[in-house]
Amino acid sequence: MTRARANARITATMNKDSGQRIKFAPGEALRGKGATAAEGFFAAGVSCGVRRAGELDLGLLFSGGPCVAAGAFTRNAFRGAPVGVTEEAVADGTLRAVAVNSGNANAATGAGGVEDARRMQTAAAEALGVEVGEVAVASTGVIGERLPVEKVEAGILDAAGRLGAGDDAFAEAILTTDTRPKQASATVRVAGKTVTVGGTAKGSGMIHPNMGTMLAFLTTDASVEREYLNRTFLAAVERSFNRVTVDGDTSPSDLALVLANGASGNEPLDADHPDAPAFAAAVEKVCVELARAIARDGEGATKLVTVVVRGAADEKSAAALAKSVAGSSLVKAAVFGEDANWGRALNALGYSGVAFDVGKAAIRFGEVEVFRGGEPVPHETAEANAQLSGEEVVIEVELGEGESEATAWGCDLTYGYVEINGSYRT
Amino acid sequence: MTRARANARITATMNKDSGQRIKFAPGEALRGKGATAAEGFFAAGVSCGVRRAGELDLGLLFSGGPCVAAGAFTRNAFRGAPVGVTEEAVADGTLRAVAVNSGNANAATGAGGVEDARRMQTAAAEALGVEVGEVAVASTGVIGERLPVEKVEAGILDAAGRLGAGDDAFAEAILTTDTRPKQASATVRVAGKTVTVGGTAKGSGMIHPNMGTMLAFLTTDASVEREYLNRTFLAAVERSFNRVTVDGDTSPSDLALVLANGASGNEPLDADHPDAPAFAAAVEKVCVELARAIARDGEGATKLVTVVVRGAADEKSAAALAKSVAGSSLVKAAVFGEDANWGRALNALGYSGVAFDVGKAAIRFGEVEVFRGGEPVPHETAEANAQLSGEEVVIEVELGEGESEATAWGCDLTYGYVEINGSYRT
Repeated sequence: MTRARANARITATMNKDSGQRIKFAPGEALRGKGATAAEGFFAAGVSCGVRRAGELDLGLLFSGGPCVAAGAFTRNAFRGAPVGVTEEAVADGTLRAVAVNSGNANAATGAGGVEDARRMQTAAAEALGVEVGEVAVASTGVIGERLPVEKVEAGILDAAGRLGAGDDAFAEAILTTDTRPKQASATVRVAGKTVTVGGTAKGSGMIHPNMGTMLAFLTTDASVEREYLNRTFLAAVERSFNRVTVDGDTSPSDLALVLANGASGNEPLDADHPDAPAFAAAVEKVCVELARAIARDGEGATKLVTVVVRGAADEKSAAALAKSVAGSSLVKAAVFGEDANWGRALNALGYSGVAFDVGKAAIRFGEVEVFRGGEPVPHETAEANAQLSGEEVVIEVELGEGESEATAWGCDLTYGYVEINGSYRT
Repeated sequence: MTRARANARITATMNKDSGQRIKFAPGEALRGKGATAAEGFFAAGVSCGVRRAGELDLGLLFSGGPCVAAGAFTRNAFRGAPVGVTEEAVADGTLRAVAVNSGNANAATGAGGVEDARRMQTAAAEALGVEVGEVAVASTGVIGERLPVEKVEAGILDAAGRLGAGDDAFAEAILTTDTRPKQASATVRVAGKTVTVGGTAKGSGMIHPNMGTMLAFLTTDASVEREYLNRTFLAAVERSFNRVTVDGDTSPSDLALVLANGASGNEPLDADHPDAPAFAAAVEKVCVELARAIARDGEGATKLVTVVVRGAADEKSAAALAKSVAGSSLVKAAVFGEDANWGRALNALGYSGVAFDVGKAAIRFGEVEVFRGGEPVPHETAEANAQLSGEEVVIEVELGEGESEATAWGCDLTYGYVEINGSYRT
């Protein structure tokens, strides 16, 4: 299975620091592959009629016990109604359930939209027998139309009766223009117990580093101290979802949540625990895996583009440079055309806002170095272009300015992107 | 003639402040339509073999007398060799000639590239009998290949023998993926004399507010004090070229220059002259006209998109908001699809980085108001979509925050853009 292999490869590098062995259990019996991979989490996905008849459009995620929780939210000044409602719910650091609909973002819907989000939250709390403040809500889809909230309420009731350990229907119900569900998980030994971190995400268009239209729901059966969970999660989000760009548009509806229910019974993890780095690595690994899946499934994309910047003065600079290259329309179109037009990559580095010495920089497309020391490195164009022929393209930049590095993910710009977004509502 | 009519419309609004009458003379006998519209400027365009045989690729612009001059240069950290050479030449506030080639940007070419740019400058100085420091040079085209400088030198010699008042060949020689030459001019009475401001530009891809791959050469026969010319020109550039976005990519080769030779014999203009506002309006008018032409000719574009933001707290905020909407891939694709998907415009306002109250904002597509006070304004979708059916689309935003406004220009995102940039080098 391709994903399992990809997982294994990433693990090897990510474990360097922690000295811990992370194992992956994507297909483990009785557990889901994503948000229900961890013990004690249950999910369901149903069709409630927001989207076309028969299309799954309502997902419900539930923990058998109370959870500590953390969230990251869109930085768009214009935010969908559910974002505020969920931010409020998670403010005390606890959650127990998440209700999500696709097909309608409940954004730009005024005071009525906030009311609809609260009704959605209340419906889930009642159906699951938990407090209203323990329920997060999320909506994704068209902006500017009121949510058909009665349908959503009925869907929540329906989903609550179907909760199970398998979460494929949940993963599907939260998709919009995505072509594939996105699930990932990792297991890690902490404090003598095996704990699992799982996650399910969606995201395809309106994706940009500052939390594009993406939703991600991570769960873990680890017992984790609240403040440490928050810090660990935000750091992982920064290195994963915030480094994905599909089209430069940041959505009003983005959110990423993590729920930790402690079902594995480990001694609680905090920042000082010796196994804290291993747990953090597992969280980051699941986030990165989901982030890559989002980039790969970018609207109209045929290729996943990974941009690695090394030798930067600091990680923030490296990230800004990597995102600038991954986000360049010209680089993206060149990748689509399998044209190793490295001048466009150099150009995108140049306008990133990060100062660097072009004379010390080197650029590599796959295996072929194309630029070094301010000048082109002689190479066969055909050989360089061949580096772009696969489904995954890697562009590496070495700055020679310092020791920091960062990776960003994007995709190619294709006729398909124009087609999808030139006719989304029709 | 369409352009003349467009000119006239803009003039009416631009003259409000100055109280002066600006007249346009795009087709006036014995004068060019762009960079040679002003008295005493001569231009030529020839084919020297940088591009395919027979394609014009070398332009030369010359003033019969010495000029005061000013320039604006790309903010990309990675800059083409000619940019530095030209910045040096104009540093003393004087210029007399400009040599430009298309087909090769002479960028990412190391120390050899700087040498080539200097040879180009020297060749023009010798051919025209002026000082080396009086010659500006510019190159546009493919990045990362050495300039065939002998061909360029021969072309400069050829062009110097063909200098004339007509500048159509010059306008054509500086184009790359542009489909149309871009020329504009305005005449204005200052200090009892009629002076002309003209300009020729190129730009189609790699266009973004901070001076995309665009070149603009303005000339005027007005007599203008150096510091005032510089300030007036930079302000005009800010309100025109820096508000155009085609694809978010800022090129390493951009530059805009203005040369004033004083041939009209007016009493020199400075900031305190009563006719200074009229002159500034004429310069801005020509810059805006050329900027609009660049946006309209964006790679693959079928529509010019004008975004006007009013009621902002300050002009800088208004400009950032307008540019964010004009630059959104999702807005651009929706315009191509003639889908009045105003949620995407609202979304782009939201991630612009400018704080504003969504509850006070209103959005209009053409004649149809679609959003106000935090909620959609009920309207017929078909009627809103019809506002996008022409070759020019206007999106207006009213913020209700203050008195400032700004306009940005862009174009739609089409299959053509992907096609052009997926196969530019092949």
